Amino acid sequence: MINADVIAKSNDTASEKLNADYTALGEHLDRRGIDIAAIKSKVASYGVAVPSWGVGTGGTRFARFPAAGEPRDIFDKLSDCGLIHQLTRATPSVSLHIPWDAQPAADLNSKAEEVGLSFDAMNSNTFQDQPDQAHSYKFGSLAHTDAATRQQAVDHNIACIELGAQLGSKALTIWVGDGSNFPGQTNFTRQFERYLDAAKQVYNALPDDWTLLTEHKMYEPAFYSTVVQDWGTNLLIAQQMGDKAKCLVDLGHHAPNVNIEMIVARLTQFGKLGGFHFNDSKYGDDDLDTGSIDPYRLFLVFNELVDAETNPDFNPTHMLDQSHNVTDPIESLMVSATEVQRAYAQALLVDRTALAGFQDENDALMATTTLKHGFRTDVEPILAMARLENGGAIDPVAAYRASGYRARVGSERPAVSGAGGGIV
Amino acid sequence: MINADVIAKSNDTASEKLNADYTALGEHLDRRGIDIAAIKSKVASYGVAVPSWGVGTGGTRFARFPAAGEPRDIFDKLSDCGLIHQLTRATPSVSLHIPWDAQPAADLNSKAEEVGLSFDAMNSNTFQDQPDQAHSYKFGSLAHTDAATRQQAVDHNIACIELGAQLGSKALTIWVGDGSNFPGQTNFTRQFERYLDAAKQVYNALPDDWTLLTEHKMYEPAFYSTVVQDWGTNLLIAQQMGDKAKCLVDLGHHAPNVNIEMIVARLTQFGKLGGFHFNDSKYGDDDLDTGSIDPYRLFLVFNELVDAETNPDFNPTHMLDQSHNVTDPIESLMVSATEVQRAYAQALLVDRTALAGFQDENDALMATTTLKHGFRTDVEPILAMARLENGGAIDPVAAYRASGYRARVGSERPAVSGAGGGIV
Amino acid sequence: MINADVIAKSNDTASEKLNADYTALGEHLDRRGIDIAAIKSKVASYGVAVPSWGVGTGGTRFARFPAAGEPRDIFDKLSDCGLIHQLTRATPSVSLHIPWDAQPAADLNSKAEEVGLSFDAMNSNTFQDQPDQAHSYKFGSLAHTDAATRQQAVDHNIACIELGAQLGSKALTIWVGDGSNFPGQTNFTRQFERYLDAAKQVYNALPDDWTLLTEHKMYEPAFYSTVVQDWGTNLLIAQQMGDKAKCLVDLGHHAPNVNIEMIVARLTQFGKLGGFHFNDSKYGDDDLDTGSIDPYRLFLVFNELVDAETNPDFNPTHMLDQSHNVTDPIESLMVSATEVQRAYAQALLVDRTALAGFQDENDALMATTTLKHGFRTDVEPILAMARLENGGAIDPVAAYRASGYRARVGSERPAVSGAGGGIV
Amino acid sequence: MINADVIAKSNDTASEKLNADYTALGEHLDRRGIDIAAIKSKVASYGVAVPSWGVGTGGTRFARFPAAGEPRDIFDKLSDCGLIHQLTRATPSVSLHIPWDAQPAADLNSKAEEVGLSFDAMNSNTFQDQPDQAHSYKFGSLAHTDAATRQQAVDHNIACIELGAQLGSKALTIWVGDGSNFPGQTNFTRQFERYLDAAKQVYNALPDDWTLLTEHKMYEPAFYSTVVQDWGTNLLIAQQMGDKAKCLVDLGHHAPNVNIEMIVARLTQFGKLGGFHFNDSKYGDDDLDTGSIDPYRLFLVFNELVDAETNPDFNPTHMLDQSHNVTDPIESLMVSATEVQRAYAQALLVDRTALAGFQDENDALMATTTLKHGFRTDVEPILAMARLENGGAIDPVAAYRASGYRARVGSERPAVSGAGGGIV
Repeated sequence: MINADVIAKSNDTASEKLNADYTALGEHLDRRGIDIAAIKSKVASYGVAVPSWGVGTGGTRFARFPAAGEPRDIFDKLSDCGLIHQLTRATPSVSLHIPWDAQPAADLNSKAEEVGLSFDAMNSNTFQDQPDQAHSYKFGSLAHTDAATRQQAVDHNIACIELGAQLGSKALTIWVGDGSNFPGQTNFTRQFERYLDAAKQVYNALPDDWTLLTEHKMYEPAFYSTVVQDWGTNLLIAQQMGDKAKCLVDLGHHAPNVNIEMIVARLTQFGKLGGFHFNDSKYGDDDLDTGSIDPYRLFLVFNELVDAETNPDFNPTHMLDQSHNVTDPIESLMVSATEVQRAYAQALLVDRTALAGFQDENDALMATTTLKHGFRTDVEPILAMARLENGGAIDPVAAYRASGYRARVGSERPAVSGAGGGIV
Repeated sequence: MINADVIAKSNDTASEKLNADYTALGEHLDRRGIDIAAIKSKVASYGVAVPSWGVGTGGTRFARFPAAGEPRDIFDKLSDCGLIHQLTRATPSVSLHIPWDAQPAADLNSKAEEVGLSFDAMNSNTFQDQPDQAHSYKFGSLAHTDAATRQQAVDHNIACIELGAQLGSKALTIWVGDGSNFPGQTNFTRQFERYLDAAKQVYNALPDDWTLLTEHKMYEPAFYSTVVQDWGTNLLIAQQMGDKAKCLVDLGHHAPNVNIEMIVARLTQFGKLGGFHFNDSKYGDDDLDTGSIDPYRLFLVFNELVDAETNPDFNPTHMLDQSHNVTDPIESLMVSATEVQRAYAQALLVDRTALAGFQDENDALMATTTLKHGFRTDVEPILAMARLENGGAIDPVAAYRASGYRARVGSERPAVSGAGGGIV
Repeated sequence: MINADVIAKSNDTASEKLNADYTALGEHLDRRGIDIAAIKSKVASYGVAVPSWGVGTGGTRFARFPAAGEPRDIFDKLSDCGLIHQLTRATPSVSLHIPWDAQPAADLNSKAEEVGLSFDAMNSNTFQDQPDQAHSYKFGSLAHTDAATRQQAVDHNIACIELGAQLGSKALTIWVGDGSNFPGQTNFTRQFERYLDAAKQVYNALPDDWTLLTEHKMYEPAFYSTVVQDWGTNLLIAQQMGDKAKCLVDLGHHAPNVNIEMIVARLTQFGKLGGFHFNDSKYGDDDLDTGSIDPYRLFLVFNELVDAETNPDFNPTHMLDQSHNVTDPIESLMVSATEVQRAYAQALLVDRTALAGFQDENDALMATTTLKHGFRTDVEPILAMARLENGGAIDPVAAYRASGYRARVGSERPAVSGAGGGIV
Repeated sequence: MINADVIAKSNDTASEKLNADYTALGEHLDRRGIDIAAIKSKVASYGVAVPSWGVGTGGTRFARFPAAGEPRDIFDKLSDCGLIHQLTRATPSVSLHIPWDAQPAADLNSKAEEVGLSFDAMNSNTFQDQPDQAHSYKFGSLAHTDAATRQQAVDHNIACIELGAQLGSKALTIWVGDGSNFPGQTNFTRQFERYLDAAKQVYNALPDDWTLLTEHKMYEPAFYSTVVQDWGTNLLIAQQMGDKAKCLVDLGHHAPNVNIEMIVARLTQFGKLGGFHFNDSKYGDDDLDTGSIDPYRLFLVFNELVDAETNPDFNPTHMLDQSHNVTDPIESLMVSATEVQRAYAQALLVDRTALAGFQDENDALMATTTLKHGFRTDVEPILAMARLENGGAIDPVAAYRASGYRARVGSERPAVSGAGGGIV
């Protein structure tokens, strides 16, 4: 965390321009019949979770190039996450990944309190082998052909729930890499039966106020078939499990060209949208920074979410899930949290009454123009003012760079080697 | 239809080689513990439906280049389809498209009997406007914002059922182009609600022994969103409708890279696989000849179907659905029917006991080798012998060319102009 | 064309808000060190060509749903195009398509003068058969196996040049559909040799101050292979032809996920970027309205173009090329011309000195933030003010709708039937 | 390497069936006018190189699951590669990867001689950092913004040439991961200028009888842009370098749906096809076993190669390049080498005179049928007989499993931990 003076000083230099921009935007929105304060208020109360593993440098199967000050453990990670929230006021919670972050609950709670964060969904890991593990996940976990291996994966998920219950978490997110690399390697139907059976055991261990989030992904690490390959299979899982089971949508886990916002609408319509992993992608599960490649697509997703907000039971979780290979992870997460807020604010600006009218009349041109009017409005002054009023930084990256935080932790935390690369 | 002498003469020239090839294959399969006669028997009783519209030359939005002897009406089409079955003994039924093929039931039945065919699923058309139509489908049909337009589409589907009931058909296939070309043009959720409501009316009009087949497609003619865009939405439709509703899978209607055989497995597992439109594709809904681009994918689909055959209730419809832009449609349909049979025969050769064993042991290499052993076996002698013994041609294309059929109908049926092209 | 009073009245209602927005934007840009007047001036002098065929309703192979007032001929089309330029002041030229628009040069020049337009690149058509044509293009044109068919296609292209020369055009754009639908249908190498030989004959007929623009496309109407399938082949063509030959990039003609802005950069670097066909796409060559699906991609293309503007010899042609299936084509073209200008204006705002610095330092986060700063600025007031000062409409769609133009031409021009659909 | 007795014993059990199958196939081919001995002879003299890194277990960014007996160093790798060739007689050479395999030339030559292998192309590595390296490749290598980093990468490539020259290698393959993860992170043009400049230095260091092979790849490890992203850029590189520079095609490095066989044809036509990395893929650069996903595509590539064989100067290198994540790498490489031979043999069976005739007549159906006739012939007896006669195993996998080799090296080579995963 950084000194409040650094933030204040950074804000001092930027506030004059912000005030002018905010005033001008307020007047402009007023001419459109929109109250800027109401938008700002919604933005200010919006938060997106940060994944604990996101503050470390990511990599590919070819290599990982770590930077200085890599977090050594979950406590370092929580410090980094706390700083992100301190500057952006947009990331009030952290999502843990077990066993990477497995520590005594009291220690985790204590550290979280110290850095002003709460705990979002728990994440289990059955796609890697751990040193002390009896059975390997090389050929699967929840859907493995071997019953003991499945049980090991079930038990691990239940342990995640138990730890999460002590941390105030209310959801378990399951993503598995189970699948196959060759036609014929696995029988699709029997593999899915095994998955459903094992997942049901995890589901049955959920506390009443918890949600089970299952995540689909087209491919990787399996390259011919993946057991939960798309939203169709994910929907079947949620249906088979029960009311506490919902689908999690990661923006990078779809086939090329797929209309993701439509999947969001379908899952919402049938009460099965559980949450998001936000990121962006150009080719596959690239895990690039949210909004960095196709910001309009992100806006179209938020257009669906704002549409659904009128339903009081609609409350999907929002999390960033990115791999920061060439940037400072703290900077990327701050900017990405802001991009999520930006899409939300833009979607709030859409004149939904007018839009519905154009839709009813099949006036495609005016309907899409109405949508884009929200998107092309520069809402940065709203986001910045919400941050400022919440005690954050007008320009989080500038404040962060001015703080010298990275250099400081770089001196405290030992350098790590590149490693990485399962290749080639 | 052509003279039996032509077929006999064609078979005469080819039978010696066939006998030699068939004997050698029988001996080879015997060494693998497979009875060639059992395979031949299954192939001989397998049939795939031909679409009535498939015997006309297809085109693109840019142009259509008709050949000589284009069928003038459904009676010409039935003649062409009858010939296909005469030579291949693999296409015993025809699927009608209404209103293109709308004629008195008695006339259709009479002609079908004459050419030795029965009627497969009925196909409705609400993606084009007809001259006498009250409401346009420009902005949709079953999911249109206007109630009267939806009702018109519902009524048309019910009329298709009524005609089909007089023809012995047992299924209605619905494919609609409803969707949008612009973000915001349509509200995804309300559009799908309208679709479900209208489809339910059609469903309620189904006779007890009929099946409603709904067909998904990623895009085209709508280019931003399509109301039944993938198998997830298709599954929801089938679930909402009831037991008589099932999903139809067209091999060309998926996103790039999608694992189609896995979708087949999922729908089968949950009792919702209703049938197929076979074709092949390299880029989109190219409607190329079945097996012409990726024959192994076709085999992998049949691998799932043979797996599911053990369930006596499993009985999906099989139809070719292709656009013949540069070939004689009769030739393409004959070859494609053969390709479907080929994939079926190859899938029958797979040693499923061995395969299951390798799968249980995660012996990916031997599992996939076992599958491929079926695929790489040249089963042409089995297909040809089944045709020959059923009264068809060993080499249907050669017999067809020898018959002079195309030249004959070319002189009887007036030439038509290219037209086509909605472009550009 | 519409009465100036209509425009004036429309502008009257909108000018107060525009002035306020423009002033506020000017002050904001001033705080960023940017002179709004300089940007406006560049935007005001920017123009994009309109394709003559774009003012008719487009369609797909399934259907075409025409609207009222479809242009009957090139003279009606020029009227519609003139109106688009009257209201937007952004589309000063029209691109003709031969033989659709073939008329005496004097008549075309006279009409163009009347509506205030000039002529952009000529487009030949060898992907459709014309009634009086000796040889069919069913199996190709410039690359056909038959020499006489190739010669016919060459002659047609030369005729296009000759007509264009009388119209003040300076470029011929060639797009052919030659390819194949089946593996083996064509020998790739011999087909390309034939293409090169025929194209060379056309090239040799070019006046000295003309450019030959060849256009690549991944697929459609050919669905297995296309002779000019990508920019690699297109580059080879331009290299083989000579200095007057350059590549034309249509934004919708690429494989999924391809980085188009990078292709733009490569062709620019090697002096072979000849021009653009602007549109947008989600799945294939959807020909959707420019900027309607992925506006950031359009911006990234213009980012390359603004980068290259410093080279005085860099002067690619810009044209809209879209299919308007569900909107009034005049409205879509007006909005799309504006979207092209918007991307240009946003790209002009990028601080290129700062960007280059961040690139040199591998500060990926600040580099991309710098780029996005341009993109997220709402430049609408600049575009509107440029239109207003040039005599156009602040809100072209509103002015157009107020004018009653469509109803008027709807009464003058006879209704046409849907037709279309090469299907299915 | 394994004992000859093991092979002999394995062959004994299989030879009777093989003889019967081979005789039957010979008779069948004779009926088609093809001399089986001539095909067998070509297959027997065909070889594909094995990559040294291919005998280790591969992984993904998520995890790597090693098996027993992982090779400890290049000498273990050469033993494994020798065994592959011993059993298949199809992989006479190995391609080294530096610095992974950097050892004194004398030691490498001695070991290669011992195991009966020669050295194929050398591969440099500038996509990972090595412990002793002065400059990091995090932001690029040959195209880095920093001159010293570029020089380091150039020097490394020259060192690879120097080592290779002592090993009898005749080619250097360069693949770099240089690119960007964010729009704006890099200037495409300047980055490519730097690449060309650095590559030219490497080119200038090539011995006269060497070839420089550059390899393109659409994405990964860079996820927004890659400096050598496709064959268009690769062609420009080869053109800029000179006659000794050619393009290397990896089957998994293309955009979705791309027609790879056409790229092979184009590069061949212009004298720039340098070689292949064979593998298969369903989604991206999956590095799956050759022919395991789409065997017809592999055949179509070989169809082009057989077409080009008539040119005596045509001599591209052939190498397997796969990641074996779930199989024993030795088994996968043996099967894949066989799959490459299979595609070659099938392509040799195509009646090219008939094919050319059908192509000239635009008889698409018979042309594609002619091609497929080659593909659907089961050539396994030819491959097996060629292996047998060359001293290899009829069934390499069975012989390998019977040999106990994996268990033996598993006891000699220490177990390694999973590690891997740059994630997440």
